[in-house]
Amino acid sequence: MADQTPDTTESPVDLIARLARDGRTAQTVLARMDAPAKAAALHAAAAALRADQAAILAANARDVAAGEAAGLTAALLDRLRLDPGRLEAIAAAVDSVADLPDPVGEEISRAERPNGLVLARVRIPIGLIGIIYESRPNVTADAAALCVRSGNAVLLRGGSEAVHSNRAIHAALVRGLASAGVPQAAVQLVPTQDRAAVGAMLSAAGLIDMIVPRGGKSLVARVQADARVPVLAHLDGICHTYLHSAADPEKALAIAINAKLRRTGICGAMETLLLDAQFPGGQAVVGALLDGGCELRGDARARALDPRIGAASEADWDTEYLDAILSVAVVDGLDGALEHIARHSSHHTDAIVSEDAAAAERFLAEVDSAIVMANASTQFADGGEFGLGAEIGIATGRLHARGPVALEGLTTYKWQVRGTGQIRP
Amino acid sequence: MADQTPDTTESPVDLIARLARDGRTAQTVLARMDAPAKAAALHAAAAALRADQAAILAANARDVAAGEAAGLTAALLDRLRLDPGRLEAIAAAVDSVADLPDPVGEEISRAERPNGLVLARVRIPIGLIGIIYESRPNVTADAAALCVRSGNAVLLRGGSEAVHSNRAIHAALVRGLASAGVPQAAVQLVPTQDRAAVGAMLSAAGLIDMIVPRGGKSLVARVQADARVPVLAHLDGICHTYLHSAADPEKALAIAINAKLRRTGICGAMETLLLDAQFPGGQAVVGALLDGGCELRGDARARALDPRIGAASEADWDTEYLDAILSVAVVDGLDGALEHIARHSSHHTDAIVSEDAAAAERFLAEVDSAIVMANASTQFADGGEFGLGAEIGIATGRLHARGPVALEGLTTYKWQVRGTGQIRP
Repeated sequence: MADQTPDTTESPVDLIARLARDGRTAQTVLARMDAPAKAAALHAAAAALRADQAAILAANARDVAAGEAAGLTAALLDRLRLDPGRLEAIAAAVDSVADLPDPVGEEISRAERPNGLVLARVRIPIGLIGIIYESRPNVTADAAALCVRSGNAVLLRGGSEAVHSNRAIHAALVRGLASAGVPQAAVQLVPTQDRAAVGAMLSAAGLIDMIVPRGGKSLVARVQADARVPVLAHLDGICHTYLHSAADPEKALAIAINAKLRRTGICGAMETLLLDAQFPGGQAVVGALLDGGCELRGDARARALDPRIGAASEADWDTEYLDAILSVAVVDGLDGALEHIARHSSHHTDAIVSEDAAAAERFLAEVDSAIVMANASTQFADGGEFGLGAEIGIATGRLHARGPVALEGLTTYKWQVRGTGQIRP
Repeated sequence: MADQTPDTTESPVDLIARLARDGRTAQTVLARMDAPAKAAALHAAAAALRADQAAILAANARDVAAGEAAGLTAALLDRLRLDPGRLEAIAAAVDSVADLPDPVGEEISRAERPNGLVLARVRIPIGLIGIIYESRPNVTADAAALCVRSGNAVLLRGGSEAVHSNRAIHAALVRGLASAGVPQAAVQLVPTQDRAAVGAMLSAAGLIDMIVPRGGKSLVARVQADARVPVLAHLDGICHTYLHSAADPEKALAIAINAKLRRTGICGAMETLLLDAQFPGGQAVVGALLDGGCELRGDARARALDPRIGAASEADWDTEYLDAILSVAVVDGLDGALEHIARHSSHHTDAIVSEDAAAAERFLAEVDSAIVMANASTQFADGGEFGLGAEIGIATGRLHARGPVALEGLTTYKWQVRGTGQIRP
């Protein structure tokens, strides 16, 4: 564990460079391990998490006590707190990632040229992934497992509020992985809470191949603004649900309630409801949302539907509440909905409810978001719900990978060309 | 053409922002055009290039005269110069891009979940592509055609030495495209040669989705260093060919000669020859290269093969000559070759020549380059040779697209989710 000991004479830039070089070297070993070997290593890591339960919970208790002393909010303390059940869930998640199909080695395409050259595009790991995250200690295990499964090394930089929990989880993971042949430097935890280390990670182009921020909007915004390394992230999830004139009123009601209120704090939660002026069930939908405890902020036409609806400001249309608050606008037809979404969408997830297939297909074609849905709750925007097994994050950028990003998004490819002596004329 | 008139009161940042917004608006129209409509527009653009032959060649003559007066090298003047044959080749290339399969709308995957949700990943255009290029005026037409075919808007920023040629080609393209319904702002030429406009493009994150630099190493290096927008590029093509102990001497000789000398100035040209110490044909290969007019710079063991081989410096192993110069090292076995390549490769294209399938497969698996080849000339590293029809460039980055990048690399995807009223439990 010599690598994990802070060297006070080493600058953050030098520290990150050293960790990154060690990680890249370890990754070349990991890249040569086959799928069963990586799976066995992850199962060993899960077993080590279970074996270290007492140490991990004791470390977590230190973090929780420090957080209470520092006056962390109840919500933050809840994210931070582990108990035997939560730790078992973390270990079980590592086991389940171990059992996901390994994307490495998959042939994306294969073609034979007229000259006999055979061209194959083959999935390979990206290399070294940097994860910058806040208070949830489960990210330490989740992200490490996804990276190892896909053959990537990972450099983890957790928040200071979870420092002891993260170190204990990391120690267990590394011991388990090493027992099955994964080099220790394949999963490294940045050993300092110096914020300059985050800056050094963001600047480490050529050393770190991709950075995934996991946390609140201010963390993601800082990473996106400062990074010279490619970032996989979403800043906002301002998700719209549009109830079209031809929406089935019952489905529309159920979808709207679920999209907003099932869980209000997730990025796939609906933040703006668009009611078509010709949709007959609008009053019932807003009434049910209000009755369900949701605050509604509407434009003039929406407010006419129910006196309990407050007035929306311009800022409301661009706000991700992550709470039981919803903005509501009445729009004129599909064009009105498309226009509102084009102006205010965060390109995360937007949905239409309609029995008119042509309208639904036009919505799916024209809305420029990573995920577009017809007749479903935006709360399905999730790697597990998409059948991907787990996700490293949801991306709203335009390149590489979009929407829920899982193992495949942690790979790239190379071209393998097999010839028999061909030369170019 | 009001958009193309420089406004001297507008800052470069404001200019690029305005052009980008116009381009993005135009792209939403282009994105809704189907494949035959885009093909027809490109054929109309090719016809306009032919119709404008006199104007384009006259504009080009102005550039060539200015270049001669400014003392441009013969090589640069040759890249700049158009004649009826070269202009016809440019038009024919636009026609051929029009006939390539349209990647937009292709389903990458489709799956039905147990709850009945149908998830499809569908290819869509990326959005607005920025092209920053130097003296070759053909890039104006090539890049515009590839972007339009894939539904992207493009912002072109050519070099000052080709300014009149680029304007004439651009005017023809836009007229042809517009005659078939493509908005003028789908293909825009930055109307100023102010270098600050390049900086503004590189900083236009959120307005320009991807930048492709086309030109010499200093241009690419500047773009990579300064860009806040994702860049698709390669800096160097330091391509290795390793002649393994089990290489067929005749194939090895033919491949080495072709990889180095067919064309020395392309990025896929071999720059370092690795001779296995046990390969019996090394003397014949270096002799033929020397006889063919190639300067060889070798390590001590290579120099022992022929007295005409000069001494390589450490810098030679990291040099892309783009000329009839080659560095030669003798290595010990496949491990020696892999080690040399890991240290010096630019991750572009590296090849092994061997009749030993296990050695070849290990090379293909372990060399970390965008293109790895067995028993073929590295000069095949080209979109046309890969069957992609044309290429916007060759990329050595790790994300999004690697190796020759063509129409598919100019697309991204979105998730389309089709439900029947599903809500998340």
